[in-house]
Parts: sequence; C-alpha cells; structure tokens
Amino acid sequence: FKNGLYVETEDKSFDFKVGGRIQADGGFTSYPSASGARSNVGFRRARLEVEGKAYKNWFYKFQYDFTGTGVTGIRDAFVAYRDTLLPESITKQPVTFQIGSQYEPFSMETLNSSKHITFIERALPGALAPDRHVGAKVGLGDKNWSVQAGVFSTSFGQDSAQAPAVTGHQYWDLTTRATYAPIVEEDKLLHFGGSFMFHRPNDSTAAQDPNNLLPGTGSRDETDILNNRYVVVPSAQALTCSPVYKSAAGVALLWTPGYLQNSCLKYSFNYNFEVAASYGPFSVQGEYSGAHYERDAGTALALGNNGGSSLNYSGYYVQGSVFLTGESRAASYKGYDKDWNTPGTFSDIVILNPLSKGGLGAWEFAARYSELNLNNGGLVSGPYAYWAAVAGGAADKALASTATLGGREENLTLALNWYPVRGVRFQANWTRAMTLVAPSDKPYLNGQHPSTFLARAQVFW
Amino acid sequence: FKNGLYVETEDKSFDFKVGGRIQADGGFTSYPSASGARSNVGFRRARLEVEGKAYKNWFYKFQYDFTGTGVTGIRDAFVAYRDTLLPESITKQPVTFQIGSQYEPFSMETLNSSKHITFIERALPGALAPDRHVGAKVGLGDKNWSVQAGVFSTSFGQDSAQAPAVTGHQYWDLTTRATYAPIVEEDKLLHFGGSFMFHRPNDSTAAQDPNNLLPGTGSRDETDILNNRYVVVPSAQALTCSPVYKSAAGVALLWTPGYLQNSCLKYSFNYNFEVAASYGPFSVQGEYSGAHYERDAGTALALGNNGGSSLNYSGYYVQGSVFLTGESRAASYKGYDKDWNTPGTFSDIVILNPLSKGGLGAWEFAARYSELNLNNGGLVSGPYAYWAAVAGGAADKALASTATLGGREENLTLALNWYPVRGVRFQANWTRAMTLVAPSDKPYLNGQHPSTFLARAQVFW
Amino acid sequence: FKNGLYVETEDKSFDFKVGGRIQADGGFTSYPSASGARSNVGFRRARLEVEGKAYKNWFYKFQYDFTGTGVTGIRDAFVAYRDTLLPESITKQPVTFQIGSQYEPFSMETLNSSKHITFIERALPGALAPDRHVGAKVGLGDKNWSVQAGVFSTSFGQDSAQAPAVTGHQYWDLTTRATYAPIVEEDKLLHFGGSFMFHRPNDSTAAQDPNNLLPGTGSRDETDILNNRYVVVPSAQALTCSPVYKSAAGVALLWTPGYLQNSCLKYSFNYNFEVAASYGPFSVQGEYSGAHYERDAGTALALGNNGGSSLNYSGYYVQGSVFLTGESRAASYKGYDKDWNTPGTFSDIVILNPLSKGGLGAWEFAARYSELNLNNGGLVSGPYAYWAAVAGGAADKALASTATLGGREENLTLALNWYPVRGVRFQANWTRAMTLVAPSDKPYLNGQHPSTFLARAQVFW
Repeated sequence: FKNGLYVETEDKSFDFKVGGRIQADGGFTSYPSASGARSNVGFRRARLEVEGKAYKNWFYKFQYDFTGTGVTGIRDAFVAYRDTLLPESITKQPVTFQIGSQYEPFSMETLNSSKHITFIERALPGALAPDRHVGAKVGLGDKNWSVQAGVFSTSFGQDSAQAPAVTGHQYWDLTTRATYAPIVEEDKLLHFGGSFMFHRPNDSTAAQDPNNLLPGTGSRDETDILNNRYVVVPSAQALTCSPVYKSAAGVALLWTPGYLQNSCLKYSFNYNFEVAASYGPFSVQGEYSGAHYERDAGTALALGNNGGSSLNYSGYYVQGSVFLTGESRAASYKGYDKDWNTPGTFSDIVILNPLSKGGLGAWEFAARYSELNLNNGGLVSGPYAYWAAVAGGAADKALASTATLGGREENLTLALNWYPVRGVRFQANWTRAMTLVAPSDKPYLNGQHPSTFLARAQVFW
Repeated sequence: FKNGLYVETEDKSFDFKVGGRIQADGGFTSYPSASGARSNVGFRRARLEVEGKAYKNWFYKFQYDFTGTGVTGIRDAFVAYRDTLLPESITKQPVTFQIGSQYEPFSMETLNSSKHITFIERALPGALAPDRHVGAKVGLGDKNWSVQAGVFSTSFGQDSAQAPAVTGHQYWDLTTRATYAPIVEEDKLLHFGGSFMFHRPNDSTAAQDPNNLLPGTGSRDETDILNNRYVVVPSAQALTCSPVYKSAAGVALLWTPGYLQNSCLKYSFNYNFEVAASYGPFSVQGEYSGAHYERDAGTALALGNNGGSSLNYSGYYVQGSVFLTGESRAASYKGYDKDWNTPGTFSDIVILNPLSKGGLGAWEFAARYSELNLNNGGLVSGPYAYWAAVAGGAADKALASTATLGGREENLTLALNWYPVRGVRFQANWTRAMTLVAPSDKPYLNGQHPSTFLARAQVFW
Repeated sequence: FKNGLYVETEDKSFDFKVGGRIQADGGFTSYPSASGARSNVGFRRARLEVEGKAYKNWFYKFQYDFTGTGVTGIRDAFVAYRDTLLPESITKQPVTFQIGSQYEPFSMETLNSSKHITFIERALPGALAPDRHVGAKVGLGDKNWSVQAGVFSTSFGQDSAQAPAVTGHQYWDLTTRATYAPIVEEDKLLHFGGSFMFHRPNDSTAAQDPNNLLPGTGSRDETDILNNRYVVVPSAQALTCSPVYKSAAGVALLWTPGYLQNSCLKYSFNYNFEVAASYGPFSVQGEYSGAHYERDAGTALALGNNGGSSLNYSGYYVQGSVFLTGESRAASYKGYDKDWNTPGTFSDIVILNPLSKGGLGAWEFAARYSELNLNNGGLVSGPYAYWAAVAGGAADKALASTATLGGREENLTLALNWYPVRGVRFQANWTRAMTLVAPSDKPYLNGQHPSTFLARAQVFW
C-alpha cells in the first residue's frame, strides 16, 4: 500500500495500480511585447493511470492526460512481455518487449518522469527529442547499464494529425539509447548515456510530424503554462517544404509524384549525449542534442524553401542542484532493474525528515543554463542570413536561402523546490532569456530578455 | 467498503476511493417557439473520480466529467493539507488549505453536490454564482459553523478560453463564505450562511469569463438537457464592453491602451444569503443572490454599450420538500466536521426502508419558486427601456441606454424523487415559467409561459 | 482476483471492478486510388471501465473510450436492476432492467465484445445494425435462451450531434432480440437468434442519425485504422432527404412545415438472423441483415431525391474458424446466465496451454466472406441505375431515380490469431474486396479489388 492504490496477489503473479498526478501552475512574464506579457494559472498535467502485471511476464499500462482531448491525451499505453532470455553472465534481468504508445528511448531528461524532473519545465534542447510514439521496443540491462531500441511511428501527443493523407504512408523512426553508470551508490552516482534516432518522413504531407519538421514546435521556453515559445523554425520553412498535391491533368503529372513521394526531406537523424553525477547532496546533469536533416536540394530550390540540402540544429543544457536538507539524488537513480520502461532516469527523492514525522521535508536549490540553436549554419552565419532576409539585395538573399532561421535562445533558470512528504512538491522557477536571436518571422524578439516566474503545486499518487 | 471502492491502511494514515456518477436525463418542453420546443435524452453528468489521503494530513482529489472535452471536463482537482493549528477552545477540527480546481465558497445550492440537490437542476440565481476555479482556499469550522476564503482565477468549466490574450493578465476573484447552524440534530436543522465575491476582470478581453461578464450564461432554466436558456445579458451588452484591440498606428494609440487595460468594467462583486431548515420530514431552503458591477461610464458610452456605470442584478429561490416515507433532510446535513471542502451543504438521504431490505425506499415531494432578474434597474424601469429600445425616439433611447436588458424569469418547479437504495435515485420535474420578460435580443419571449418535463435516472458509487 | 482489479464484499452484495483494453493496430492497403492507398499505425480502442454491484440487485457500469472526445467517447454507461420476478418454471435467472447508454439488442456480431470477436473488424453487414444508444431495456432468459427489448434514442458514439434542432423531437428506436441455443456444452454449441428494430426518425433534421439515414456510414470495410469505407449511400441521397428549414414569410409556410415534420422518411425497420455452431475446435457463424425504409414518395420526388417510396438494403457474412491448439469456442459461449447485458455472444477463449505454463498459447485460423448491398433494388437493377445516372438520357434517369446507389461490396478475410495468455491477443488479417460495385459518387471504385493487411496487439484487464 502506497500513495494511490496498489494490490498484488500473494504469489506476485498479478498486480494492479491506480495512479495519477496533478500539476497546478501559475506564473507571469515580464516581457512586454505583442507575443509575450501575460499572467495565467492552470493545470500543466492532470493524469490518471492504471498499470498491472498478469501471469508474471505480462505488463500493461494505460495513462491519460485530461489536458488533452481524445487520442491526443493518451500518454503511456502499452503491453509488455518480459522474460529471462539472456545468460546470467550478461544480466539477471529479463529482456523487455513493448508494443503501444511509449517514449522513444532518447535523452535522459525527456524520458525522466515529469513528476521528478528538477525544474518545472524540461530544458530547451528537449525540442529536438521525440515524444511518445506508437511502436515496438526491446530493452535489456541491469542495475548500472541499459540498451533500448525500437521502431516507432504515429505520436498521439506530438502529431498534428493521427494519419497520413489518404494516399500516403506514415513516417517511421528507428531509435536507440544506451546508458552506463560506473558508480551507483546511495549517495554517489556517475551516469553516461547516448541516443540516436533515424527518421524517415511521411511521404505525402508535412502535417503529421511537426516536432520533426518544424524544429522548436515542442519547445516551451521552460514556461508551458504561459505558452511562450520564442524560437521555432517558421512554418514557411518547414523542413519537408510544403508538399504540392497531385492534380489530375497536365504536365504536372510528370513531376508532382516526385514531390508527393519525397517532398524535400529525404531523412533526418538526431543524436544526444547525457551525463549525470551526484555526490552527497550535490548533483549535476547535462545533455547535448543535435539534429541533422538531409534534403533534396533541387526540390527545395524549386519550391523556394530555404536551407539547402544539409541542415543542422543543436542544443545543450547544464544544471546543478543541492539539497539543503541533505538528501542525495543518487538514491533516486533508477537502473534497468528498477525501471525497464525508462531506465537510467531519476525517481522521487527519498525525503530524510518528512513533514509527517515532524521534519522540514526536503529543500532543494537548483540552477540551469540551457541553449537551443535553430539557425541552420549552412554556408552563411545566422546574423548574415537574417540581415539578408530583412534588408539584403537579391544576391544576399540567394546566398541567405541556404539557411533556415528558427532563432537561438539561451536561458538561465533558478529553482527552489520543497518536498514536504512523498507525493507532494511545491516549486518556484525564475527564468531569464540571456540571449535571444529571433526567428525570421518574429524580428521584434531580437535582443529581448524576457523573464518569467512560475510556481507549481504538484501531487501524485 | 461502500458503493464504489474504498481502501484504507490500518492506521488510517492513507486511504483511496474510486467514485463516479451517471445522470441520464430525458425530457420535453411544450414551448412552441423557434428557440424552444424540443425533446431529447442524454447524459447530464458522467463522472469518475479518485480521491485519497496520504500521511494523515495530505489529501488529493481528481474528478473528471466525460461530458466535457479536454480540460473543460476537469471538475474538482486539488491537493489539500489539513492540520490542527487552532486552540481547542475554538475548534477541534483542523484548518484546511487547498490548491487546485475547486468551487469558490459561494452559495449553499451551488456548493451542494449535484448528486444530492433536491431538484434536477439548480435554481435560477445560480447563474450569479461562480463555478469551480483554479485557486487557493483556506477553511476552518466545526460541526455547526464554517468560514472559507480564497483567491481564484481561471475556471476549466466556466471560461470560454483557458488563458487571457497574449498581452493580458488573467482575472481573479476573492471569495468568502461563512455558515452557522444553531440547530443540528438528527431530525432538526436551522442553517444560515452568507457569501461574498470580489471580481477583478481580465484586463485584455471579455472572452475569458462569460459567467461574470454575460450574466445568465450559466443559467439553464432548470432544464439543462434541453439546453434552454431564456434570460441572459445579450452579448452586445457584455459588461466589459467588447474590447478594441490595439492597432499599431494613428491616433487610436492614444486611447486604445485604455480600453485594453480597463475595457468598461472596473470591478464587480456578488453576494449571497442562504437559509435552510428542517423539522422531521419537512424542510425548506432559500437563497438571495445579488451582483453589482462598477464600470467606467465614459468608456461604456464611447463604445455604445448600455447600462451606465453602476449595474445590479439579482435572483432568489425558495423551496420546500417533504419525505412521504419519513426521512429527515437534517440527518444528511454536513458541517465542516464531515465535509471540509463544501461545509454547510447536504449529503445523501439516509433511507429508512431501502428496497434492498424489503422497504419502499424513500419518496420525496418538493416545490420551488425561483427568480432571476437580469434587467439592470439603472435610472429607468426595465419595461420602459425595453419599449424605448424597440419603439422609442432618440431621447427615449438615450435614457434607455442607462440600462442593460438580460430579461427576468420566474419559474415554478414541482418534483417527485424516489430513492430505492443508497446511490440510486429517480427524479421527475415539471417546470413552468410563471413570468418571462424577454432580454432585448429575443423579443418573442415576452409573455410566454414555456413549461418543461424532465426525468432523470441517477447512480453514483 | 483476475486481470485488472476486482473486489467483493464477503456476502457478495457489493462488488467493484476496474477494467480496460488497448488495441494497437497497424496496417497497409494496396489499393492505388485517390481514396485508398495508405499505411498507418494507431489505436483502435483505448478504454477504461468501472463496474460494480450494490445491494445485491443494483448494477452500474461506466466505460469510456479515449479515442473519442467528450460524450462521443462514452460507451456502456448504465444502471441496472435485477430481480427474480418470474416463476422458476420459466427461469431461475432474474429479470434485468437497464437505463443508460447501452447496445440496442441487435445482431450477435455487433453485441459481441470487441475484445472477443474473431476478426480485427466486424463484418460488413454491421453497417445495418445500431450502435449504443441511450435508452431503457428489459431482458430475461436462461443458460440457453434470452429475450431483450427496449426503447432507445440518442447515441453518443453514432450520432453526428447530441440533440435535435431546437424545434425538433429526437428520434427513437424500438428494438428486440431473441436467442435460443439448443446445444450448449463444453465443446459443442448450436445457437440461433433474430433481431428486429423499428426506427422513427428525428422530425427536424437528418443530421442526428447518420448510421440510419446514410446506410454504410458505420461500415469500415474491416479496416478501421486505415479508415477505408467504400460503399455508403451518398449524402445527396440521404434517406430523409435534406430537410428544408422553415422561413418566416411567403407561401413557403404552406408546405415547409410538412418537410419539417416528416422530411421524406416516415419510418424504417431493420431485421437480422444469426446462427452459430461449434464442434470441438471447429466453429462457424453467420448472419443476414436487412433494412427497409418507408418514405413519402411525393416529398422525395419534390426534393429531387432518388429511391422511391420503399427501399431495401441487405448484407450477410459467413465465417469459420479452427483452433489449431484444440480449444473450443463453445466453451466461451455466454448465455443470459453469464451475461445479462449481451447474452448469446462469446467471451474470451479458455486457453488450454497458456504460455505462462510453458505451453504455446492458443492458435486460431479463420476465414470470412462478407457482403453489404446498399443499392436499392427498386424498380430497376443497380447496374442499370448506375449507367443511367452516369450516361443515360432523361427517360433513363427518371426511371433510375427510383433507386439509391450506395454500392455493393463482397470481402474475403483470412485471419490468424495467437492468444499467449488470457488478456493478450495478437492478430493478423488479410482482406480482399472480391466484388466492388461503386456508389454513384465514387465511380472510380467500380471493378477495383483493394486488399488490406492489418495486425493488432490487444491487451485487456
């Protein structure tokens, strides 16, 4: 019996849990422009979930977020089979096969449960990581290592439509992540990891997969409840180029199928490196993410779309935290032995002196520096391309069209967290955009330094 | 173990409950006009909820109504902390702190669970009471008294949008309610209460808060499934006045920001008085609600919006019921000791001879007279203003523009309820509009007497 | 304790169950036309449900499908009362009264839980069967027979709107089904059944009830995740005719009310015959469905709507399956004694050697031939009417207008199912349209033979 409801048969062959979480946020931002200043309160997440085990080897989970509507609210929803297929010399842990809606194995921060991330919102480079998708995944590992790989397609939470156009084939991803933690002790941790995703786009329309085709769409500038999103590739520069639909007559038939089959984007891949460490109450964590797109240069040119044939975006963050009350983040590290769905992430803090026993709960102070660069380097620099697009001559513009300009942002976030008892957390975050280079469709953002204050009350069970 | 599912740890530190309700309604209305006559069946509410207790002092509840979509279906969703902070000489009951989506403490009828109200729909003046909002509330009390106060903002169920415009700050309410019940016995009850709400509007747009800015929007004429709503302030007379959005050039810049910051409405406040009594199988209940709006007269005039600078609306209802099978409503009264979320309301009837023990269940007959007046008194009477708007000269119209005309309605409702066992109730209601003075945009309603029959099958667990 | 969560009081007066299902589908179709070829993955159903018993005689169930939004996701949601009202010489089973959202008792295949149907999608004639509706139903029966009858109206899942127009009365259905199974043994079964539905349409608009008024709307060509639907009555031929709304002036007032009250459709009825048999691992099942519409010939003619006054549609399917691992479908037959909501259907297979005990699970091979004919015979043949509509002269067209052309389709489906343990099933279906006669608005479908491959992973608890 824990928070929520958990039941189990005596022989541990079956179990069942009802859980949930509520995150009530409120905040305001000081940024005084047309797309910025506002205050609001609301719910960031309101979820219920059931999960269970059947016949020892079979597992299922269904999680729904009531801030979404219909299928867009479906989060984890999968069936898993786990069996000890490997020799003990490799691992005593069973191998896991999962089918359904689940996270692609990519990036520690993205995979970490939103109940347990240190800050209210994930860092900016999360915009380059895939969300949950429908697919199949296999995983193996042990207390201090894990490997997961899978093939994925439609995403309920991320895609703007749940199916490709009637003549189209859905996109797919191949994704893998490996982690290794040479030190896993109660108060010491050292963790490394890397992820890789290959993406083959939907062949008929760009509408299905905005997170991939409009990088930055998934970013929230660490302030979701206020719905700020400063840097994002403009939709006029969608990386597939807008597909031209087949018309029934004329010479267009000769070349249109080419667009329909390939549009601009041939494929893309994303990669991510992660490191986390903890020593007593101190912990640090950082990730670097990159995305590379390969396009058909001729098609892109014919459609007047910027960026050339080979594009790159990237982001990183570093963060540090200290528990003023002495807890260690190392104690909440979950290896594959504790979490076969998202191994190598963090669970909830083990509070040393909870309020319910007369203590103060746990108090944590944290800081993070986070960057997302959605300006494609290309042949020219971002500032040059920006200047050319706004004020350059024809030659400048031609040269500049080898670049896409989604903007660049660097944020500093300070955080104070209070954990009175297990399941309850109060958070306060202050974020300032230290650097803001505008995307090409929002020139008024250049040089601004919006700052935001957010507070959250969270309960889970 | 009760209806539904309830589990508890042995030391009572933790518990968990899964509940829900279904209300299937069917009905028809005799009103033969373009906006009236119809028949229909459907679900009024279809809810699931989980609630629990953790570490003795912490409580959470999440309730979702599947007749809504996305966040608009979220009902109660909060975390609460309760602790004995007051000396025993005042109360032995702990003080309650709540954060999340919850009812503002205003009006006995509004706060009373829809599972246990006497009639199928709440009375007309409920249109002047706030719905659930996201906010923070503190409450204290004991068996026969309670005081609650809080600050609230966005409402998932009531607002037409979940956030203010990008340049705006969300509205907020300060709300408090106090109740006192000098007599609380098994078959005798006397209860008094009063509520007050101060409302500071969203500074950028009227769209966020229709219940406040278009009084009557929340009324359902006691017949929700048929979606009738006769009296409501016309949207052309929205109490903020329609805000004019900032345009970038011209002299408009000189005065537009004024509208954006204040529109017409400076603030409003609502108040409510309640009384309920029960003696054996007989019970009576009544409430009076009023709403007062303070506006900037010059801005309202400039925008051609009616009503002047100071507006008032009101409503009341009185109802009586008798249990033919002898039950007393007093037995289901919930003081703060039994319900710290909505103290001073009624729970389910304790059935003396349920069907499951060979009895007849409980039978109840009830009658209610209910009024809502959304014509602003202003300087002239409603009928005069109405006549002037429809047929008067320029001078008449100028005088009449000191008033808003949302209409006035008086309803008589008769009800028969059958409670076979705990958790199940069958209801039949017949409602006739005794008086109907039309709002200015629906002149065909004047003098009509639509009547409506509604039946409901309800189960909760 | 089963899959999911089930609790019961010691005296069996109360119980409560939390269940759910996930069906993750993926597939592609080879059909190369504008409305066909595509691939996709997604969820066909993602449901949670709670059900319980209270005071021995009272039952409730609430089931929600998260692939729908708001009320359209509500599935079963009813309260039931069961009591032994009949003499034991007729049946020892109690009579059942149900109110709420529930299946109309019509067609074995439609009533059979989607968790347990043999193929991934139901057969084509299911397009002629009603979905779940809000209504009241009474049922009685025993192990080998059942009779159910009820009156129903609004459907959350099927209707395009949840209420008739403001001046209208909602449609209603009278539906009944009877089943008789002369042989019910562990490995032998013989089952017969028949159903009948009378439908009185909504008097103001056709929009409420597309399944009835545009036959074929509910068909999915056995491939829902790809959203194919080849044969369906074109909306220009909607069986009510498009209603003309009342205008306030002119001679139109003389005849418009006639349309509003009756439109074209006076009433319709549907009927269905079913047979199922099982002998050891072999089983067969088949159904024939018909629909008859009676219309006002003059109104239909005046509105230029095809089909004449008396229309007929029909469909049938036959299927056979064999369990390669020896299970018998007879063992999963549910009489009224086991399932009072949908008696005379099949539950889950009792797996002889589940994977959890070292077996292979159950393996099943099945084939089905399925037809749906939405061409109204009328006075002329479908091909003639089709030719006349596309290329005929005025006289040909006049004659042809005695027919509606929704098309005709015959499908062959082959299936392989694997049931490793109770609650988990993997399915693969291959379907080919053997005959395809196009509806009049999709001539490009004539003579095509699209084929489709679908796979499903299903878990329920």
